[in-house]
Amino acid sequence: MSLKKQLKNNEIGISLDNIFKLAKLALMKHGADEENADAVANTIMIAERDGSISHGLFRIPGYIKALKSGKVNGRAKPILEKITPVIFRCNGQNGFASLAHQHSIPPLSIAAKKFGIAIVAIQRSHHFAALWPEVESISYSGLVGLTCLSYLPWVAPNGGKTPLFGTNPLAFSWPRPEKDPIVFDMATSSMAMGDVQIAARDGQQVPLGTGLSEFGKPTKNPAEIIKGVLLPFGGHKGSAISMMVELLAGPLIGEAFSYESGKRDNGDGGPAQGGQFIMALSPDILSGHDWENQAKIFFKKFEDIEGSRLPGAQRFANRKNKGVRKVNKILLETVKNLSN
Amino acid sequence: MSLKKQLKNNEIGISLDNIFKLAKLALMKHGADEENADAVANTIMIAERDGSISHGLFRIPGYIKALKSGKVNGRAKPILEKITPVIFRCNGQNGFASLAHQHSIPPLSIAAKKFGIAIVAIQRSHHFAALWPEVESISYSGLVGLTCLSYLPWVAPNGGKTPLFGTNPLAFSWPRPEKDPIVFDMATSSMAMGDVQIAARDGQQVPLGTGLSEFGKPTKNPAEIIKGVLLPFGGHKGSAISMMVELLAGPLIGEAFSYESGKRDNGDGGPAQGGQFIMALSPDILSGHDWENQAKIFFKKFEDIEGSRLPGAQRFANRKNKGVRKVNKILLETVKNLSN
Repeated sequence: MSLKKQLKNNEIGISLDNIFKLAKLALMKHGADEENADAVANTIMIAERDGSISHGLFRIPGYIKALKSGKVNGRAKPILEKITPVIFRCNGQNGFASLAHQHSIPPLSIAAKKFGIAIVAIQRSHHFAALWPEVESISYSGLVGLTCLSYLPWVAPNGGKTPLFGTNPLAFSWPRPEKDPIVFDMATSSMAMGDVQIAARDGQQVPLGTGLSEFGKPTKNPAEIIKGVLLPFGGHKGSAISMMVELLAGPLIGEAFSYESGKRDNGDGGPAQGGQFIMALSPDILSGHDWENQAKIFFKKFEDIEGSRLPGAQRFANRKNKGVRKVNKILLETVKNLSN
Repeated sequence: MSLKKQLKNNEIGISLDNIFKLAKLALMKHGADEENADAVANTIMIAERDGSISHGLFRIPGYIKALKSGKVNGRAKPILEKITPVIFRCNGQNGFASLAHQHSIPPLSIAAKKFGIAIVAIQRSHHFAALWPEVESISYSGLVGLTCLSYLPWVAPNGGKTPLFGTNPLAFSWPRPEKDPIVFDMATSSMAMGDVQIAARDGQQVPLGTGLSEFGKPTKNPAEIIKGVLLPFGGHKGSAISMMVELLAGPLIGEAFSYESGKRDNGDGGPAQGGQFIMALSPDILSGHDWENQAKIFFKKFEDIEGSRLPGAQRFANRKNKGVRKVNKILLETVKNLSN
């Protein structure tokens, strides 16, 4: 089937290269320097490449709003500090997170390879993307990656109707020699806010249990949930994990809870400032055994179970397609206008 | 209301001191030395104290079966090895986990206070209890605790009907100066197997979604689930977290997956051998801010939300009661017979 036939009426095709160029242009047009624009445009391009559209071009208007309002410094130079041989602090200097990752993940990985574990506490950074790129890059060095961050108080703790938690994503990756890592990246809310927003834009319903209306009533209408509150995934257990993310990405690393990020945010629609907890672990040091082959057999068993699916597999499958990506027409028009 | 009136027909009252003594007697009677018996009896006593009955006297018959069959060495002397300044390996020498914890958690906490983070990989150990005691003791030293282990292949990955994961508990604790820590300890299965077993014993139903029958059908009957398979909590997200536990407590630390533990287990009904991942983190080092007060305000906000509940609060409330505990009559009789 030709691409043209695959496209819906409201979609248009665009190459990955052009997605990158367009994103970079829009960011530089609004004051980002080349280093920052490159880092963020790459984050946007790889999201579209892997089918994670809620973190792709869809985010450009928000990134630009944050540059326009002055909330984010598009010319930030992150500062990395080593606190102990295994603890780093990276001050994002009020910039977008992508550049802070470029500065901090390579030294983090070196320390983890030497000592078995290392952490970087990212502070004063604005994260508006998926988390799998961070843990994936850690795992391509043969390490296990774990990261989380809290993000704006949109989620009620289990049993409540008042927002306190963020959508609080958590991502984990396991390295596989000569293969792509096994990666999961999930909001600890029942659904990521980006996906709720896209459902609202496209006039689709969301499953019951995703959230409550502003009157505290269960609803399938994403627009009502945006005015109301999201719920954690998995009842009280998911709620506990979301609380853990608040603590790890907040006070543990000298940064804000979601509700504090919300308070200091100027509401421009761009990414709020906050922290990110990133950890790398070395199975070579910790295990002392043939962990690679042991895990290989496990993943084979996993894949052999009918109906089950290894997390992250769809992303790597999407990545194999080097061709054009389908993008919402109105969105592309908006982004083009922002880059002219 | 007098205790006698509170007791159901099938219950009897027993003091915490007598729970400890009875457990210790039973263990020593079957070959455990005093050091091991003390450690395990304490684990059993604190479970009954805190209302975690599926980890209390209920476990004695299993502990004894493992001593009788020779699967567990009741005279084990765990060996602790420092791999790097922040990585420890504790070989449980085929003993029960409680003594391995006593040997490894104090040096783990000292390393975490110095370097910001430390891990102990527990190997060749038999864990048959809750995980909150480990993380709690870490948090009483002002540190954040995180631990997990995999346990016998009873759980199907999301979408599947074939068991691969263990019930894979995960526990986390956050220190609060001059207050009890905030602690959660949860199976990543929809329900812990001990609770399913107790529901079966007491003729109670379990919620739909807890597990499948041996024919792969959803059922509320715990006896059918014991013959069939448990399901992960929270759909594909909980399933991903259960997979993470398999990897952290298995190949990462040189130990077994649940399915490997299952294969090498002799099926005596006692605890299988496996590994445990225990991590301690220092907010003093990582944060560089007044994390204590910041978290205090957050927990206050949490508690103020109607309908929500801080995890672990019930356990600390139960602990305040120093009086007798209600125990199933038949169980107490069984334990008494094992200690005579």
